[in-house]
Amino acid sequence: MTVALAAAESVGRLGEVPVGAVILGPDGSALAITGNRVYLDNDPTAHAEILAIRTASAKLGRPRLDGCDLYVTLEPCPMCAAAISTARIRRLYFGAADPKSGGVEHGPRVLDSSSAHHRPEVYGGISETASAALLQAFFKERR
Amino acid sequence: MTVALAAAESVGRLGEVPVGAVILGPDGSALAITGNRVYLDNDPTAHAEILAIRTASAKLGRPRLDGCDLYVTLEPCPMCAAAISTARIRRLYFGAADPKSGGVEHGPRVLDSSSAHHRPEVYGGISETASAALLQAFFKERR
Repeated sequence: MTVALAAAESVGRLGEVPVGAVILGPDGSALAITGNRVYLDNDPTAHAEILAIRTASAKLGRPRLDGCDLYVTLEPCPMCAAAISTARIRRLYFGAADPKSGGVEHGPRVLDSSSAHHRPEVYGGISETASAALLQAFFKERR
Repeated sequence: MTVALAAAESVGRLGEVPVGAVILGPDGSALAITGNRVYLDNDPTAHAEILAIRTASAKLGRPRLDGCDLYVTLEPCPMCAAAISTARIRRLYFGAADPKSGGVEHGPRVLDSSSAHHRPEVYGGISETASAALLQAFFKERR
């Protein structure tokens, strides 16, 4: 999660909402380290998790990430939560909860729905304070 | 929808689940015509809708598709439904309903959740028979 936080900080310095993600492969090696790039890339789907899943899948040469674990500094939104399920991520570790826009423990709770054909193990609140502090500082500066 | 169906047919011939999408810009011009490419690209997020949103955003040079309409041959899954909301698509037209994996009228009904900060107008059942026939033929051949 420390690496995901550093990725979040990096994109925050570029004006993006500071969210970072890391995917570790079945052998524990890092397959992807990504930050949110919605405005940098003019791509509404370029959340850290989506970019991490795309990078890791390309690296493994297969469209499923069985046995891989994803770390992300913020609770995934419904788009990312569903992508995590579709990609067959084994374990999801996330930082700060997101009551307004989250899709795992909030909103549509995508992973608990009948359309989610795979449910990763979910561990929330990892480095929650650091993740939330990063986001709060970012939004405070912009207000 | 005829163009989306043709895009679905094209990728079906390449072994992909035949789903196609089109995004029309505010002036009615086609910004993206895409088919599902999950296996072709080794990318679990490469559903026709995600690829269409990424293509159209890149073309417009902005991460929001206000005033744009999306046509897709199958009810979007939760990932795509949430992406459609995030991208601020104005109107969503879809073909066949997807009770097993859909996320608009089925499963988590993402667009009706508190995490969806924008809800497009939704019109289902457009060219439903042709869309469903394409999918049924594809899966029948593979059984």
